[in-house]
Amino acid sequence: MPGNSFGTLFRVTTFGESHGYGIGAVIDGCPPRISLQPEDFYAAMAARRPGESPSDTPRREKDTVKILSGVFKGLTTGTPITLLILNRDVNSRPYEILSTLFRPGHGDYTYFKKYGHFDYTGGGRASARETAARVAAGVVADKILYPLGIEFTAFTVELGGIRIKKIDLDYINKSPLLCPDPDASEEMIDLISKVRQEGDSLGGIVEARISGCPPGLGEPVFDKLEADLAKAVMSIGAVKGVEIGEGFGAARLRGSENNDSITPDGFASNHAGGILAGISNGETIVIRAAVKPIPTIRLEQDTINREGQPTKLKMQGRYDISAIPRIIPVITAMIKIVLADHYLRQRAIMTGTKPA
Amino acid sequence: MPGNSFGTLFRVTTFGESHGYGIGAVIDGCPPRISLQPEDFYAAMAARRPGESPSDTPRREKDTVKILSGVFKGLTTGTPITLLILNRDVNSRPYEILSTLFRPGHGDYTYFKKYGHFDYTGGGRASARETAARVAAGVVADKILYPLGIEFTAFTVELGGIRIKKIDLDYINKSPLLCPDPDASEEMIDLISKVRQEGDSLGGIVEARISGCPPGLGEPVFDKLEADLAKAVMSIGAVKGVEIGEGFGAARLRGSENNDSITPDGFASNHAGGILAGISNGETIVIRAAVKPIPTIRLEQDTINREGQPTKLKMQGRYDISAIPRIIPVITAMIKIVLADHYLRQRAIMTGTKPA
Amino acid sequence: MPGNSFGTLFRVTTFGESHGYGIGAVIDGCPPRISLQPEDFYAAMAARRPGESPSDTPRREKDTVKILSGVFKGLTTGTPITLLILNRDVNSRPYEILSTLFRPGHGDYTYFKKYGHFDYTGGGRASARETAARVAAGVVADKILYPLGIEFTAFTVELGGIRIKKIDLDYINKSPLLCPDPDASEEMIDLISKVRQEGDSLGGIVEARISGCPPGLGEPVFDKLEADLAKAVMSIGAVKGVEIGEGFGAARLRGSENNDSITPDGFASNHAGGILAGISNGETIVIRAAVKPIPTIRLEQDTINREGQPTKLKMQGRYDISAIPRIIPVITAMIKIVLADHYLRQRAIMTGTKPA
Amino acid sequence: MPGNSFGTLFRVTTFGESHGYGIGAVIDGCPPRISLQPEDFYAAMAARRPGESPSDTPRREKDTVKILSGVFKGLTTGTPITLLILNRDVNSRPYEILSTLFRPGHGDYTYFKKYGHFDYTGGGRASARETAARVAAGVVADKILYPLGIEFTAFTVELGGIRIKKIDLDYINKSPLLCPDPDASEEMIDLISKVRQEGDSLGGIVEARISGCPPGLGEPVFDKLEADLAKAVMSIGAVKGVEIGEGFGAARLRGSENNDSITPDGFASNHAGGILAGISNGETIVIRAAVKPIPTIRLEQDTINREGQPTKLKMQGRYDISAIPRIIPVITAMIKIVLADHYLRQRAIMTGTKPA
Repeated sequence: MPGNSFGTLFRVTTFGESHGYGIGAVIDGCPPRISLQPEDFYAAMAARRPGESPSDTPRREKDTVKILSGVFKGLTTGTPITLLILNRDVNSRPYEILSTLFRPGHGDYTYFKKYGHFDYTGGGRASARETAARVAAGVVADKILYPLGIEFTAFTVELGGIRIKKIDLDYINKSPLLCPDPDASEEMIDLISKVRQEGDSLGGIVEARISGCPPGLGEPVFDKLEADLAKAVMSIGAVKGVEIGEGFGAARLRGSENNDSITPDGFASNHAGGILAGISNGETIVIRAAVKPIPTIRLEQDTINREGQPTKLKMQGRYDISAIPRIIPVITAMIKIVLADHYLRQRAIMTGTKPA
Repeated sequence: MPGNSFGTLFRVTTFGESHGYGIGAVIDGCPPRISLQPEDFYAAMAARRPGESPSDTPRREKDTVKILSGVFKGLTTGTPITLLILNRDVNSRPYEILSTLFRPGHGDYTYFKKYGHFDYTGGGRASARETAARVAAGVVADKILYPLGIEFTAFTVELGGIRIKKIDLDYINKSPLLCPDPDASEEMIDLISKVRQEGDSLGGIVEARISGCPPGLGEPVFDKLEADLAKAVMSIGAVKGVEIGEGFGAARLRGSENNDSITPDGFASNHAGGILAGISNGETIVIRAAVKPIPTIRLEQDTINREGQPTKLKMQGRYDISAIPRIIPVITAMIKIVLADHYLRQRAIMTGTKPA
Repeated sequence: MPGNSFGTLFRVTTFGESHGYGIGAVIDGCPPRISLQPEDFYAAMAARRPGESPSDTPRREKDTVKILSGVFKGLTTGTPITLLILNRDVNSRPYEILSTLFRPGHGDYTYFKKYGHFDYTGGGRASARETAARVAAGVVADKILYPLGIEFTAFTVELGGIRIKKIDLDYINKSPLLCPDPDASEEMIDLISKVRQEGDSLGGIVEARISGCPPGLGEPVFDKLEADLAKAVMSIGAVKGVEIGEGFGAARLRGSENNDSITPDGFASNHAGGILAGISNGETIVIRAAVKPIPTIRLEQDTINREGQPTKLKMQGRYDISAIPRIIPVITAMIKIVLADHYLRQRAIMTGTKPA
Repeated sequence: MPGNSFGTLFRVTTFGESHGYGIGAVIDGCPPRISLQPEDFYAAMAARRPGESPSDTPRREKDTVKILSGVFKGLTTGTPITLLILNRDVNSRPYEILSTLFRPGHGDYTYFKKYGHFDYTGGGRASARETAARVAAGVVADKILYPLGIEFTAFTVELGGIRIKKIDLDYINKSPLLCPDPDASEEMIDLISKVRQEGDSLGGIVEARISGCPPGLGEPVFDKLEADLAKAVMSIGAVKGVEIGEGFGAARLRGSENNDSITPDGFASNHAGGILAGISNGETIVIRAAVKPIPTIRLEQDTINREGQPTKLKMQGRYDISAIPRIIPVITAMIKIVLADHYLRQRAIMTGTKPA
């Protein structure tokens, strides 16, 4: 269990570094006879691709997903699905400076302490590029969930301290920041532009909503649905906080406010965010993730080199200003992977079912 | 992987319901030759025991931990350590009403949907009593961590909307709510008293700090230290949010503020909360958990019965007003289990080490 | 994954030493609403109990299985089932000699090398007594398999070099050695009696047959059904060889002999032993296990003490002459655990099934 | 845990089908800073490659291992190592007949029953080609074991009923069948030639010996070293039996014969095959595997089609006569993977070690 796999029955292993041959994922446990084609990955990969939104640098990655195994005549076989996304030829020279010093806010220092050496070109395994493999795996997970009527919406709740004041779900895809509030979206775009000039970066908050999830998903005690969701979302590099339903807000409610009354037509409210005692209750699952500002900035920073001596770091070039919005499809993908896994786990123990 | 185990190399499986023979834990993977006696559990079990703080009902559980296996002549053997905590004889009669209806805010509804029936006496497996087994397992984890100089402090940051204004670590153990701010502690005690009269309950926020953790713990990508910590803490019933370091606050910082400069003497700040790219960096690890108000309240609530018909629920008796402070040793225990596990995982891959 | 758990979805963790409070098992992942009572364990536990057959010493263990958790009103809840079998008060004094020297053929030497110390009283964790917990877990596994029409027969094929010449399944339970050949059974009993006089011990071969297993159980590549069966059976202390179907005999057949022709009515022969490419094919699964002679003998043996100095060991007392027949229910139990696990795994991926 | 991964800390996941883009392995958990180059794979891949020995068809696969990730500047990084072996363009047309009927002795029938459809071209996932990925992973495992002085020898003990009468280890690499007995080797070659004429195939027995393994590897109870070895070896398609040390022969020995006396200089004999109570004892580990005859034969066979109707199958073309000797590097690779994994597991619990 060395850390690069996620899930039990629907199990995703990602591999690859940002500078190297490519990155990818092996998905073991996908049920058979599900239609899967290269085109299925286009939309999700494009949504994650940098350079499409105001917060991103115009650098482009061509992220075509190649299906190496696990699909026969257009249908999954039940055996491992391997997805490969080639890296473009990149110039590693600008990264050579990183062979001697540690970037603040990055994993350089901790990878060096843990392993004694590390791939410093482009962040190696800790690069945001690894998340492309997660997004591709999320597409496969969605193939299991979509026929069940499970649907996903995710959007920007806050960016650089600007919080949305209203939620217009129809506006999300009109906003280059996937922000459901037109006014807030404009403000955020302006702020990004200003911060780009300064050479700094911004964080924010993302919310995901999952509707149509049947009750009963999630296992008691440790593999609670909210625990696995928290792990999944917190395993994304830029995420430093996760909350379900009312989340931190629940700390300020009374029990009589926070408890969701149950009626013959379902729950009267959804403070629980769709999960009770770790198991889905049929209501919309609501998750929010706190996204830290991107650590790569053009402003000069203090750091040390591998010998422990103080030095200055000033990154040249153009960088993303915020992980938002391109982190949104990554968060969605991780949630899909969790739900596909728990759906299969629940199938295994349902009463009264026999294999074919 | 059916949900009642946690950890990979230091692996804890809890078992038992609140009403039944007892609860306990099997710990598989604890290294050999560690001193372990029944007395080692006294302090932690007492700290978790209800009825010791203003927010608890005076009901008392006598939680003596019995070591059933895995210890020989006072030393761990490397084989499974089984810990058993007997339940006291309890009167299950008051719970018979729960055989027909679902308590709002509890797992009754979801367990019923998932399993088709459930142990409704005292919450069954979803009872807070299950956490006693976690606390006991945390004592064993601490036996691994303590000799390394890893130390834990945890305290109440907020309760019922009252937030601490200062942190006096020495005051924590003087406050019955483990609150490091004497004034806030008084206010909280007063609020609890008032809310108890009303028959309602309160939530809050807990912070844990771990000092002395060596750099290098945590695995890349999915088993990041912060991901496993998030899962561990979110797997506690009452927790609905988790954040590391600046957490949700990081969403409002600029990169230049949030990045921790590195100096020859270590990090100049600790916005990261001791974890970079999922791996410990040697600084104090900081985690906060949002705790929802206890769902069992004396106020009347709307719900449905098993047939789906509307009904009213009015719980009789005395109940805890808040999961704080008794949840604090549970949070600490889960963090200890995560760290002990990641410490063993890191031992396995360290360069240059051979088995004896 | 420290070694004391088996299975993925139907997951058994055993704990306990032969001298101590007791031994037991936690079963995580058993589906809900299965009837389970203490009486269900009587027959299997009695079959495993020493002192019931000619090859055993008359020492008796009273192996009552106590259900500590996971059952509510007589039905499994889907949460961990904990089974506890108390140890009788035993006199550990005869074992004190083992605190200084290593018994040949036992785990004393290897446990000492691995852990630096070990529970030498009665073999500790390596004692055959641990298998009582497996047998109890097998009873629960059978609760899943029996309604599917999966049935088990297991018998002695060989003992002390005496091989059966015919198979009369009806005779198995008439033979105190569970031997299906009346003549061979008599011969074996005589041999045991003779070897008991000499202070020596005997090995043998056991065969298990599983009928009614649906096709489709087993996963490709590493978790092949025969691979998991081999691990399960080889994990029993006395077993040193495992074969499926023709097994070692297949090495001497031609492909045209060993291939089982397929007819509209099923397979025309069963050289494969019911498993093709690691997946059950619907035919009877056939497994044989080689059982080594019991290492505890009354004859004097050469060994060394903990300081590495040569010494002699002469065990006093009465010992079992052969692990056969009491190992037979252990082998059956392990097979049941494997099949229950693979059945649940197959349920998870079956096409066209949705959770309730 | 869907079946295509093996190991806990040193964890190998294989992927790919015989007809498709390629096959490969992801190795997660390999320690950092181990030298790894494409050339390291040459010898092992060549040894497994068909067409090099009398029992193989002259068909050739060019099995160059491409390292896609996990190595930086020639050293492992501690992150997932991905190995890819491209498939050559193959003509799938001869396999179209397999889209309608099931080959006896193959997984066609069981894959169809399990998944509802399967990749029938060249055996899909059940093809012997999958073992190339295992051999590649074994090369990485060996990088961990070799510096410890752990060495491997494996050879043919029996083929088509011809058993070796002597063991000349120096002759192994001179025999095209890796047979240590020159006379038996000649006889086997003659038999292969004869059976090739007949259109039939042959099985045999392989023995592997591992010297230099330190004592202490293996976990108690379920993850015994011999249990994991049995699973590893039995997970190879053609293997139907596994034995350790005396194996099935131990069933015919008395305890006084089978027990290995312990002397100040080590064990006086090695009936145990280097493993006591599931833990290595420092002696040579001895494993034998029964290999069934290759199911693809040119003789006509009875079978059914997908509709269940009887039909005849007569394979055209040239096929391997025996899985021996090319299965030998596969068996060795699986043993290496088990030992590397258990070595890392043992490192994690060793007394008195701290991470760097």
